[in-house]
Parts: sequence; structure tokens; C-alpha cells
Amino acid sequence: MSIALETGRIRKIDGGVTAPQGYRAAGVHCGIKASRKDLALLASDRLATCAALFTANAVKAAPVLVSQEKVQSGAAAAIVVNSGIANACTGAPGLADAREMAALTAHALGLSEEFVLVASTGVIGVPLPMPDLRRGIPQVARALSPEGGADAAEAILTTDAFTKTAAAQVLLGGVPVTIGGMAKGAGMIHPNMATMLCFLTTDAVIPPQRLRRALRTATERSFNRISVDGDTSTNDAIFCLANACAGNPPLVEDDESFALFQSALTDVAEALALQVVRDGEGASKVATLTVRGARSHEDAKRAATAIMTSPLVKTAVYGGEPNWGRIVAAVGRSGAAVDPDAIEMWIGGHLVVRDGIAATDDLSSAAEAMKRPAVEIALDLHLGSGTFTGWFSDLNENYVKLNSGYMS
Amino acid sequence: MSIALETGRIRKIDGGVTAPQGYRAAGVHCGIKASRKDLALLASDRLATCAALFTANAVKAAPVLVSQEKVQSGAAAAIVVNSGIANACTGAPGLADAREMAALTAHALGLSEEFVLVASTGVIGVPLPMPDLRRGIPQVARALSPEGGADAAEAILTTDAFTKTAAAQVLLGGVPVTIGGMAKGAGMIHPNMATMLCFLTTDAVIPPQRLRRALRTATERSFNRISVDGDTSTNDAIFCLANACAGNPPLVEDDESFALFQSALTDVAEALALQVVRDGEGASKVATLTVRGARSHEDAKRAATAIMTSPLVKTAVYGGEPNWGRIVAAVGRSGAAVDPDAIEMWIGGHLVVRDGIAATDDLSSAAEAMKRPAVEIALDLHLGSGTFTGWFSDLNENYVKLNSGYMS
Repeated sequence: MSIALETGRIRKIDGGVTAPQGYRAAGVHCGIKASRKDLALLASDRLATCAALFTANAVKAAPVLVSQEKVQSGAAAAIVVNSGIANACTGAPGLADAREMAALTAHALGLSEEFVLVASTGVIGVPLPMPDLRRGIPQVARALSPEGGADAAEAILTTDAFTKTAAAQVLLGGVPVTIGGMAKGAGMIHPNMATMLCFLTTDAVIPPQRLRRALRTATERSFNRISVDGDTSTNDAIFCLANACAGNPPLVEDDESFALFQSALTDVAEALALQVVRDGEGASKVATLTVRGARSHEDAKRAATAIMTSPLVKTAVYGGEPNWGRIVAAVGRSGAAVDPDAIEMWIGGHLVVRDGIAATDDLSSAAEAMKRPAVEIALDLHLGSGTFTGWFSDLNENYVKLNSGYMS
Repeated sequence: MSIALETGRIRKIDGGVTAPQGYRAAGVHCGIKASRKDLALLASDRLATCAALFTANAVKAAPVLVSQEKVQSGAAAAIVVNSGIANACTGAPGLADAREMAALTAHALGLSEEFVLVASTGVIGVPLPMPDLRRGIPQVARALSPEGGADAAEAILTTDAFTKTAAAQVLLGGVPVTIGGMAKGAGMIHPNMATMLCFLTTDAVIPPQRLRRALRTATERSFNRISVDGDTSTNDAIFCLANACAGNPPLVEDDESFALFQSALTDVAEALALQVVRDGEGASKVATLTVRGARSHEDAKRAATAIMTSPLVKTAVYGGEPNWGRIVAAVGRSGAAVDPDAIEMWIGGHLVVRDGIAATDDLSSAAEAMKRPAVEIALDLHLGSGTFTGWFSDLNENYVKLNSGYMS
């Protein structure tokens, strides 16, 4: 099953954040949730370079504010994460709680506080039960293990139906380098406001400014295709640690090695993003949408966003109905430049709209394509070269069930 | 039950588009739908002044393009409306069909074609069955009656659960003037893309430019509070006819009479808009949202729109959960200027957020308010004097059921 690692190739492997060398992780139940795991810890054996991207929401959770400050140094050694409570809209006490989480973790690991990042996800506006965390953090620190990636991936979940992990390996200058990751999503995914968290690890030798660039590019091609810019929750964050344990030649140049590392990081992020869509609360299907021929990239994104967030399009995807009129109507109100008489659309590769009107009376092939678990929709606006590809989930009864009683 | 008509007072009365003098209407089944009424006609005995507002969607249905051109004259005598098929994305043949609908109506009524407006609602991208309309239009014309308002209100529905009518009377210069209306909505209402149509009638004497102004103001205070600017379907339209049959002193000045007429028109439009929200596909509840203290009116609208369209807020309203965190998160991502530490929020009049954090540990009163059929949510951003009030419906399993199989 395992394919040999070859120069210039990306090999997907099993595992998550502890797949690269020099990482340990753990996940435990400390008491925030009734019985499921609710506290995760990720630690690097060596001080790592770090990069992170945070929510564009004007209302930022306390852990976001605290981590945002800390990542500026470009160095970190651990990330502590709780689920169940978001520590958002909790004011000065919330900020103190987030700082205490980092301090407790630093103490348990014998680290300086500045090297411990913090993240939270769950209900907004409720204070963290600090006594549980004061007990739980030393406990999760004791449980750290190179095999703990799966437990950590479980402990960061909220309404997610399954854990999300991915890992890949590449040869950089003849040296095997590994990238691992875990994520949590749920929420209908854009405009969802449900927290998306992602933690990426690598044993690559890479300076912080290049790691930041690689993370931005990987995010643009993965998570930003499911939850479009700016439209994020109070807690969304993507972290990446690089601890240099692989000993590859440092990734300091714009060379083939950096390009390969970038591809592998993007692949892992994309694999995690797709798992997040597949697990959109109650989602039964994943649709891939491509808009091309838009006047600009921004216009392509605008049109795609209107389609991907339309409840009527999402319910049509669920019902397996090739209701292309709802898609055209969404594009029309998106704000993107549109020539109604130039729109072309394909569902599952079958042309359904040409020159803005029905291309065929027989929608049976398109209907069949809409009924599959993976639906493909493509549009050409014939106005320019702007392109955007995104993934979105369907909207069904389970979404309503999961979200109408989330607090209770 | 009937209250006497007093100077300066608005009296709500029963009835719809045929409540004012000189209007006849009818609704029949012509064959577009399987068995329910699908063709409505509204006719004024005298040539009326007219005003209309149309969808801002870049993709406009054929009847919208045709009526948009015709209303420029400011005069009309009839409106023909079909439901079941939207005649949108139907190209040049669709335009010819819309024009033929008007021509057939003009012929049946002995009118000039230019005075007949046309509207459609239903599935996009499907051509109208013109043989049915060629048979149906003479039939609906023969059925016209001063008592036909209810039949017409029924014939314009699609997935609506009930007909929507409203009427009111005022004394203008001692003369009783009546305003009536009918509407169809359904769709979760913003961002819904389901067609909203509204037909208002009055026997007032009012010139077209003043009627246009009155209609714009009435719409701003009614339909634009449920489906915010620009975010409209391919077919949305609001029409108003004024046939002068009441014989009141012409409404040509910015005087008390005009103000009273404006209030009554707004009242009728608001009553119809509220019925549209109450009938949001599968809706079980109506929430009233007020955002104040925004930096500008635009910002208040932006914040309100983000809240009113959030699936997570809508499901919380359905579930009766006072999940104010979802509301704060929506405001944060809305693009409106926000000071996270200044937000104040009330649910059912109970303060739940102060200075951006929980105002109380005890959400039981707020939870009780959230469980009522009419939910009231108010926010103060404490940044300025921008205010917006809107109405929205909940999101529940019925919405999914209704929309996942709409075409079949």
C-alpha cells in the first residue's frame, strides 16, 4: 500500500499532526463537555517557526487576540485547544482565561509562556470553566505522545461528525520531510459562523516569513475556497508549526524544493478543507463549483459565493434537482458583472444552459449527475478571464435539527 | 366591527385589489399547473396612473423587461399574471411570449396593448405553454368581477401556503379613498431568489410622478425590510394602479392629504410584507429585528442583513434558543463598523448582552421570549445614529422539504 518516496513527488500518508518528526499530541476530557473529549494539546520537541491566519470577523474571540499577538515572534512550541466553549464575547475575564490557558500549558511543559498558542471553539458568550482547565491541562500534558494525533483531532471537535486529519511526505534535497494536519469544521460552511480550526505541522527547516507565505498560499487554495474571505466566525484560525527536525536544506529560496513543499502543504490543507465540507453539519453531499469567464477574479468569487451560499441552490443539490434557474438567479444578484444572454452552464459535464437559456429539454443526464454524492457545477460568464473554484455542501433537514437545539 | 371613517385616520378593511372602486379581478386554472389556479387578471374600469418597482437582479425575466418598458408612460388599465412558470431565462421567445400575453389580454378587454402590464412567477428556464394561455386569457377576462380579488390572490401563488391581501380606507378632502393589495412570496425571504410579487390598487386621484414617490416610500418601509435592496429574484415586481374613481381632490401637493395617503399605502404594503414573511416557505415564526446605534443607516442595514440571512440565527429562532453569540458573530462579519466591547442586545425586551459580553447568567426570560411565535431582537451598536428594522422568518425542516423537490 505504501508507495516509495520519490524525488519531486508528493506521497499521501496516514496520520495527522504527529506524522512529522518531533511532535507529540494528546486529547482528553476535562469537563467542559458532558463526556466527550474537550481539551487537546499539540507540542513540538524543539522550538518551531510558526505562522497563522486568523478570522476577519470584527468580533474576535479572546484566544484569537492572544495568539495573534504571540505568533508575531514567528516562534512557538505548543498549542492548547479546548472545544465546547469558544471564549468569545467574554471581555477582559475571557482574555485573562486565554492567557491562563497558555500559562498553565507553559508551566506543565517547562516552556516560556510566549511560545504557547491557544485556540477555542464552541458556544459564544459563556466563560470557560477554569477549574476544569486547571486540572485538565497538566493531565493532557502528561498524556502527550507521538501517537496522540488522533486523540487531539477528536478533542477539537464540536458538532463535527468525524475527525479530520491528513498527512503527506516529500523529498527535499534528498531528505524526507513530512507535513501533517488536523481540522474541525461543521456549520453549513460559509456563511456559517461555526468555527473552523486547522493545525498544520511539519518537520521542514523553513524560516518564518517563508512559512507565512506558504500558509497564505495553501489557505487561499483550500479553506478560502469553502469559506470565502472575511466571512468567518469569531474563532476561526489556521496554525502552522515547522520544527526543523527533518534536517532538510533550509527552504530559503524560490526553488523547486520550496515549490514542492508548497504543493504538499496545499495538498494537506485541501484534503482537510474537503473533509470540512463533507462534514458540513448534516451534509450528505459535496458540490464542486467552477465559475470562469468572469470579468475579474473578484467577480468570479462574488458569483461563486452567491451560488455556494444560496439556501435554494443548497436544497436543490440535496434534492438532486438540476434547477439551474436558481443558480442563474444567484449569479444575477451576486453583484458580479453578468450578461444574461451569454451564460453557459454544465451540471456533471452536461450542458444545461447556453446563451442564458435552456440548452436542452432533456435534463435527465443532468438530473442523474445532481443525484450523485459528488456534484459538479460549472459556469462560463463569457465576459473575461476571472476564475474561481469552490466546494460547498447541501442543505438538508439534519442541518436544521443540529442547529436548532445546539445550546441545550 | 366596522369603524366609521374619520378625518385623519386610517381604517383597515377586508378585501384586496378589488376593494377600491372601479377594479375587477379574476383567477382561473389554465393548465400551467396541474390543477391549482395559475392565471390572474386585474383590470381597472378606467385608465389608471401606474407606478412599479422591479428586481435589481442582473438577470431579469421577460415579463419584467416588458412591463418595465410599459410603465414608463405612467398609464395602465390591466395586469395579467401567471404562476407556475417564471418566463425567466427564456431568451427572445420568452420576450415574445410575454408580449403575446399582454396582447391577448388587450384583445380580450378591448384595450390598447400598451396599457396591459404582465408578470410571471414560478420555475425559471421553462417556456410558457402558450396554447394554455391563448385559451386561458379570454376565459379569465370573462371571469372578471368586482368580487374577484380573492380568486386573483389565489392564482398568483406558487409554494405559498396562503393568499395575502390587505386593504385600507382614508378620507381625503372629505372623500373616502380606498387602497387594496395582494402579494405572493414564499421562499425563505432574502436571500431567497423566490419571486415576490405585489399588486396595489387605489381609487385615489394622483398623478404618476407622485404615485411613484409614494410607492418607493411604501416599499422602503415594507418589502425592503424583508428582502433587502438588490437581493431579489429574476421576477420580483411591485405594481400600483390609481384609477381616480374616488374623485378626491387630486394629490398634487406635499400636504396632509398626501401624507395620509402615503401612510395608508405604507400600511397596506407593510401588512402584505408581513404576510409574506409569515409565509416564508415552511416558516413557523416571525422575528422582528432592530439594529440601532450603527455608524450609518447603511451600516445598520448591513448588520441587520447579516443577522436576518444567517442560517444559524434562523435555526436558533426556530429552536427557540437565545443563542445571542450567533447574532454577535453575524454582526462581526457583516462589514458594518463594530466595537465588540460596545454591543448591547435585547431578546424579547430582556437585556442579554452589555458591553459585548453576557449581561446575565440567567437566560430563562430570553429563552421564553425566543419560544414565542413572534420574536423580538434589538441591538445597539453604540457608534452612531444609524437604524434599521426588519422582519425575518425561521429556518426549519419544512423549508428543506419544500425546496429540495420543487421542480418535480
